[in-house]
Amino acid sequence: MNPGPDYSAAHVILRTNATDLSGHGIAFTIGRGNDLCTAAAALVAERLVGRTLEDLTRDMGVTWRYLVADSQLRWVGPEKGVIHLGLAAVVNALWDLWARQEGKPVWQLVADMSPEEYVRCIDFRYLSDAITPAEAVALLHEQQATKPARLADAAKSQAVPAYTTQAGWLGFSDEKMVELIRQNLEAGMDKFKLKVGGNVEDDRRRLRIARETIGYERMLMVDANQVWDVPEAIDYMLQLVEFKPT
Amino acid sequence: MNPGPDYSAAHVILRTNATDLSGHGIAFTIGRGNDLCTAAAALVAERLVGRTLEDLTRDMGVTWRYLVADSQLRWVGPEKGVIHLGLAAVVNALWDLWARQEGKPVWQLVADMSPEEYVRCIDFRYLSDAITPAEAVALLHEQQATKPARLADAAKSQAVPAYTTQAGWLGFSDEKMVELIRQNLEAGMDKFKLKVGGNVEDDRRRLRIARETIGYERMLMVDANQVWDVPEAIDYMLQLVEFKPT
Repeated sequence: MNPGPDYSAAHVILRTNATDLSGHGIAFTIGRGNDLCTAAAALVAERLVGRTLEDLTRDMGVTWRYLVADSQLRWVGPEKGVIHLGLAAVVNALWDLWARQEGKPVWQLVADMSPEEYVRCIDFRYLSDAITPAEAVALLHEQQATKPARLADAAKSQAVPAYTTQAGWLGFSDEKMVELIRQNLEAGMDKFKLKVGGNVEDDRRRLRIARETIGYERMLMVDANQVWDVPEAIDYMLQLVEFKPT
Repeated sequence: MNPGPDYSAAHVILRTNATDLSGHGIAFTIGRGNDLCTAAAALVAERLVGRTLEDLTRDMGVTWRYLVADSQLRWVGPEKGVIHLGLAAVVNALWDLWARQEGKPVWQLVADMSPEEYVRCIDFRYLSDAITPAEAVALLHEQQATKPARLADAAKSQAVPAYTTQAGWLGFSDEKMVELIRQNLEAGMDKFKLKVGGNVEDDRRRLRIARETIGYERMLMVDANQVWDVPEAIDYMLQLVEFKPT
C-alpha cells in the first residue's frame, strides 16, 4: 500500500516571549501532502497566538476542544486527515513546551499527574458513551498502588513494550529478513511485525521463516495496511493461523 | 457548531486538448481551510495529466481507486477530510467533463446506465462486507421494470424529495422562522429541518411553533451538527419526541 515513501514531517515550533522557551512538535507523513499538513498546522496554531502557557495547560481537554473547534476549519476536519495531522504537530509542540517549562520530559510530566489531572487532559465529547471522566478517574485510582513500581520500570525503559517492523517489509529477500530479525534478537527485541497482503503463498513462506527464526514464544504480528475488505481479511488471515500471529 | 460560516468552495477546472471541452467541479467549505482543499485538489488532479477521458471513464470505480491510491498522498487522507474534499472537486469535475462530452446533464448520464455500468462506477474495496458488486447489480435489475416511470418523474423534477433548512437556523427569531416556513409552504415545500442543540427549552418552543405552522402531516427533521455524544443525543431527543421529528 505504501510502496514509495519519502519520509517527511510537518514541524511546528511554538515560540514564547521567553527567548529560551519554545515547543517543538511534528506530524509524520510519507511525502506528498506534507505541505498540506504544514499549512493546516499554521492555521490551527493561529488560535494559540496571544494565549499564555499557564492558561492553555490548566485544562488540556478544554484546550484540545478549543483547537479543533474553529468554526470554519472544523468543516475540513476536524479530527481526521490533514487537519488532524496539523493539529497533532501543534499539540505535540504544546506538550513539549509545557514539559520544557516544567523541566521534565513529557513522559515524566504525564506520569506525575494525579488521576484527576490526567483525565482532565482528554476531551470526552465523543468518548462518554464508552467511558465517562468519572469512570476513567476511578480506573486510574484502582491502579495507584502499583504506580511506583511501574514508574521504576519506566525509568529502566521497560514500561512500554516495543516491537520492530524493521525486518518485515515486503521488498526484502528472505535472507535479508532473517538477517535483520537476528540483529534485532541480538539487540534484545522480542516482538516483531511483518507486512503482509501482497500474496498469501509468499506471506506463508515469510511467516514460516520468521517463526523458525524467532520461535513461538516471541510475539509475531502482521500488518496489511488497509488493502483488505472485511471478508478478504478473514479469509486471508485464516490461511496464516498456523503461524499464530498476534 | 457552525456559527460563523464564510461560504466558500474549492473550484476545479479540468482542461482538455479540445478547446471547447472542460469539466468543472467544486467542493463546498465554510471558509478557513478552503485553501487547503484547493491545494489538495491540485495534488490529486496531477494524476489526471496526460490521461484520456475515454480511458478514465471506461471504469470509474477503477479511476476512483487510482485517484485515492497515490502512495504518498493517501497517508494524509485518503478518503476523509481535506484530501476527500479536494478529491470530490476533482471527481465532480471529471463527471461534469464526461457529461459535457456526452451532451447530457450528469443525472441523465447516470440514469442512462445499465445496472452493470452503474455498479462499475463504484470502488467496492471497503463496501463488499455490506454489499458485493453482484448483489448491487441484482438489486438494480429488480428495479428495472419501474425505471421508465421513475425517469418520467425525474424529468418533471419530482424524483428526488427535497427539504429546506432555510427557516431552521438557530439565530432566527420565532417570528422570522414562522415567516420563512410560510414562504416555503407557499412555494410547495413539505419537508423542513431545524437546527437544534443549543438549549432544549428553546428547541422545544421552536419545534412546537414549527409544528403549529406546518401541521403533523409534513416532515420535520432536526440537526445538531455533532454537538452531542451518544448518551446526550438520546437524552435530548427523548425531550423532543412529542414533536415527532423524523
